[in-house]
Amino acid sequence: MTLKHSRQAQASEESLMRIFTVPEDESSTLSIIENKLSEDLAGFLGESIAALEKPLGLIEEDFQSHRIPNKPKYVSDYTDEIMQNLVAHSVHTSAPSFIGHMTSALPYFVLPLSKMMVGLNQNLVKIETSKAFTPLERQVLGMMHHLVYQENDDFYDQLMHSANHSLGAFCSGGTVANITALWIARNQLLKADGDFKGVHIQGLPQALRHYGYDDLAILVSERGHYSLGKTADLLGIGRNSIISIPTTADNKVDVELMRAKAAELQANNIKVMAIVGVAGTTETGNIDPLDQLAALAADLACHFHIDAAWGGASLLSQKYRHLLKGIELADSVTIDAHKQMYVPMGAGMVLFKKPELAQSIVHHAEYILRVGSKDLGSQTLEGSRPGMAMLVHACLQIIGLEGYEILINNSLEKARYFANIINRHSYFELITEPELCLLTYRFVPKLVQQKLDLAISRNDQDALNKMNQLLDELTQFIQKHQREQGKSFVSRTRIKPAKYARTDTTVFRVVLANPLTANDILHDVLQEQMDIAKLDNQYLPKLYTFAEQYV
Amino acid sequence: MTLKHSRQAQASEESLMRIFTVPEDESSTLSIIENKLSEDLAGFLGESIAALEKPLGLIEEDFQSHRIPNKPKYVSDYTDEIMQNLVAHSVHTSAPSFIGHMTSALPYFVLPLSKMMVGLNQNLVKIETSKAFTPLERQVLGMMHHLVYQENDDFYDQLMHSANHSLGAFCSGGTVANITALWIARNQLLKADGDFKGVHIQGLPQALRHYGYDDLAILVSERGHYSLGKTADLLGIGRNSIISIPTTADNKVDVELMRAKAAELQANNIKVMAIVGVAGTTETGNIDPLDQLAALAADLACHFHIDAAWGGASLLSQKYRHLLKGIELADSVTIDAHKQMYVPMGAGMVLFKKPELAQSIVHHAEYILRVGSKDLGSQTLEGSRPGMAMLVHACLQIIGLEGYEILINNSLEKARYFANIINRHSYFELITEPELCLLTYRFVPKLVQQKLDLAISRNDQDALNKMNQLLDELTQFIQKHQREQGKSFVSRTRIKPAKYARTDTTVFRVVLANPLTANDILHDVLQEQMDIAKLDNQYLPKLYTFAEQYV
Repeated sequence: MTLKHSRQAQASEESLMRIFTVPEDESSTLSIIENKLSEDLAGFLGESIAALEKPLGLIEEDFQSHRIPNKPKYVSDYTDEIMQNLVAHSVHTSAPSFIGHMTSALPYFVLPLSKMMVGLNQNLVKIETSKAFTPLERQVLGMMHHLVYQENDDFYDQLMHSANHSLGAFCSGGTVANITALWIARNQLLKADGDFKGVHIQGLPQALRHYGYDDLAILVSERGHYSLGKTADLLGIGRNSIISIPTTADNKVDVELMRAKAAELQANNIKVMAIVGVAGTTETGNIDPLDQLAALAADLACHFHIDAAWGGASLLSQKYRHLLKGIELADSVTIDAHKQMYVPMGAGMVLFKKPELAQSIVHHAEYILRVGSKDLGSQTLEGSRPGMAMLVHACLQIIGLEGYEILINNSLEKARYFANIINRHSYFELITEPELCLLTYRFVPKLVQQKLDLAISRNDQDALNKMNQLLDELTQFIQKHQREQGKSFVSRTRIKPAKYARTDTTVFRVVLANPLTANDILHDVLQEQMDIAKLDNQYLPKLYTFAEQYV
Repeated sequence: MTLKHSRQAQASEESLMRIFTVPEDESSTLSIIENKLSEDLAGFLGESIAALEKPLGLIEEDFQSHRIPNKPKYVSDYTDEIMQNLVAHSVHTSAPSFIGHMTSALPYFVLPLSKMMVGLNQNLVKIETSKAFTPLERQVLGMMHHLVYQENDDFYDQLMHSANHSLGAFCSGGTVANITALWIARNQLLKADGDFKGVHIQGLPQALRHYGYDDLAILVSERGHYSLGKTADLLGIGRNSIISIPTTADNKVDVELMRAKAAELQANNIKVMAIVGVAGTTETGNIDPLDQLAALAADLACHFHIDAAWGGASLLSQKYRHLLKGIELADSVTIDAHKQMYVPMGAGMVLFKKPELAQSIVHHAEYILRVGSKDLGSQTLEGSRPGMAMLVHACLQIIGLEGYEILINNSLEKARYFANIINRHSYFELITEPELCLLTYRFVPKLVQQKLDLAISRNDQDALNKMNQLLDELTQFIQKHQREQGKSFVSRTRIKPAKYARTDTTVFRVVLANPLTANDILHDVLQEQMDIAKLDNQYLPKLYTFAEQYV
């Protein structure tokens, strides 16, 4: 190495060390960049659009290189670049006109707290790398457990911080929460018994042989979340074991059909491992009859899990928590704080009615997670995890029950308001009523609506199919166009409305969680959809032609 | 509702709305709190201690209430509280004297970027809620894929942004990465075939029947990570199916024993589903002979996965990447960016040699993840996920290969330096040499070391056991004391050194990843351990007595 090279190496080593030290004052380069970033972020969050219009193919051009660059880049150059290439082409999930998905605005105070959480870089897998964060996470799980199960004070005094119990498990999101719950259900059902060491040790084929079952089944509404299929795949029971039960006209699972199906399965020596109730279906927002499902689960002596990833937050409203009555009867409940609780992405939870439930998935390791420790990692699917529970803790304290009461009630009532507008509108058809703050609808001019009704009254399936197919295309056309225009965003999905004889129907899907979504925005969204419909010179003209001729 | 109540309700509603809007200028209350938080965080990060001494029981007292408070709390009150109760009793994972775990310091620039990432609140499950973040994540996976597999330019040009391929999957951490890899391995092995629809559809018992296997097995070093047992449990193959293969004296898996075991399993009609190589064992930091494992996997026609969660980052060093030679032969590789890549907690990845591999776990849903879309969620275990890939992207660009070269090399060379000190020290015994930047050792006074050697030369197992048991107690005493003193932190674990006839031995475990850990800190850690040893009036005196009498 020449002297020059050696000096260069030393210089770059020093500058590298500097990036690991905290900037000392407000005039440092990093502090200036930090302030600039905060301003830019504020600017982005303040824009009232859903997304800039730029085709994905063009965006991809800025992310083409597969080589890690050799040369270090100045932080300022990097931030300038991503403001242009990345941030400007992110989705404004916080925009009041972004009403298409369950991701919405955040209270601003979580941003500085997030920076702190990231900066502390705690690892919740064990106390040695998280210390006070461990009792904090246990407290958050305790508060959420109390929200669902409302056990007495003694229960929490004894169990919340107990090394041998868990009131729940914190995880990255609802999918991991659902997997965890059903993993526990499987392991509880097929636990150690005599010579058999348990499914967790000996595996599923031997477990079924030991217990004499031909197969397992999980019963859930046809509106159950796609993570359940993934869970059945992962757990080795197979997607076929998710038995999809039809819903009644209100998109709630038909409990009598489920009961009949369970009897049929049992007659075939297929053991029902779990029933899953849905509290807020992803596509229509409806809540299954939870108390009836609990009774069925008791009859079948099987695990009762509730996927309340989205709807669970409604328990925070005294006025509406009755909509989830029966939830306290579930063995396990999934709730995502990053949905209606206004916590940033990555905060899922599963809560356990009985605090010894998670024992069936307990695991230890010598260098961490020693037996008897309070390490949270011994009962979680994930290993290393960040301190996200702190942000849930912050929201619960700073917003409080009184604050959530207002937020949740406003969302639900805004959805009812929007449903009302749609119902009275000459150009729109409400497809599903909002039970929580989610509804579906589509664009249907009054004339077409009249002819749909006529076809229904005649039970003329051909005519209905003809019109509905055109309407499907039109809905898709409008939704895509609206997304591309970027001013506002609603999502779309396909559901099977009872009104249309359960035919798959494409609909707009709206989730009204953002507190800043004022009523005029809802009117604007409809107006924009009407304007876009006029641009369609394919499906709409055909629809009118058909409707005019259909008499 | 009385007028007064109605006014109060309106006022609190307005103040609630305000928390969802971005503070407009630097004099706003939130801006002031934000600056204060940043200063406090800087203060915390600047302290050169590992953790404040406070028993967990006392910390728990601040996290006792299981009731979500009714009243909202001022942000300033809340932040004051958590600075005192939570932050002050967090673990200083960034302290240069915190050398016990794989969590270390972060470059400061990731903090403002994290705040931005959280503020944007993108959901990577689908493009509709992440737009530019989707190509960014694909690029990060492409860069990491290239780091491991070094395919040619055409490969990346065609596949990096392809809707039907994935070069890897981003996830919350190494555990989920390992689960994903072995889930894929299981589903590939037991794929659809004739009438059989595949294990993902029909489940494991039927899959084994169809393929005519009595059972499955995963072969891995006895030093494999505990997440593999969890994976076997989760996937329904059972913990018994993880076949633990002894290591050679250097803590690398004994490939010939693995080959013999595989032959034995096959003779018993147990199919080897996968071989897992470890590239950086969690407890000793050693790397299995990856190329030999690849050859064995080829002979067995099974999946070859490498758990390089911790060691994979060493590929970023031109000087040391040869230590992982053969990694490019693996079907899948786990790498955690939140370990040696200096990215905050929550950034795991699994990379796939063949970009069609993940097809075996593909899933779709109507309202998102439609067939043919580029949505990342269709091939991940998790559902909703934050935009953590952005922080990996930032580190790769801002640190660059040249920066990582220095960081990785310094860590490895610092570990060699520390090993040297310990080797020449009269009061310490190096137990495992650092292959990467992890080593283990223990406190053993010279006299005791001499008598251990004497006992070894005589093959006097009784004497060895007697001394080693006392040393185990002493090591535990010192490690706990040092942790409680809070000045510095090393972890401890139990391993089976060849030197001591594979007897379980308690050791200090040190991971030297923090660039700010200067050499004098290493000397201080040893000095502190010597001082603590003097406080022990139980094990050390017994050790001396025994050693003096053993001649």
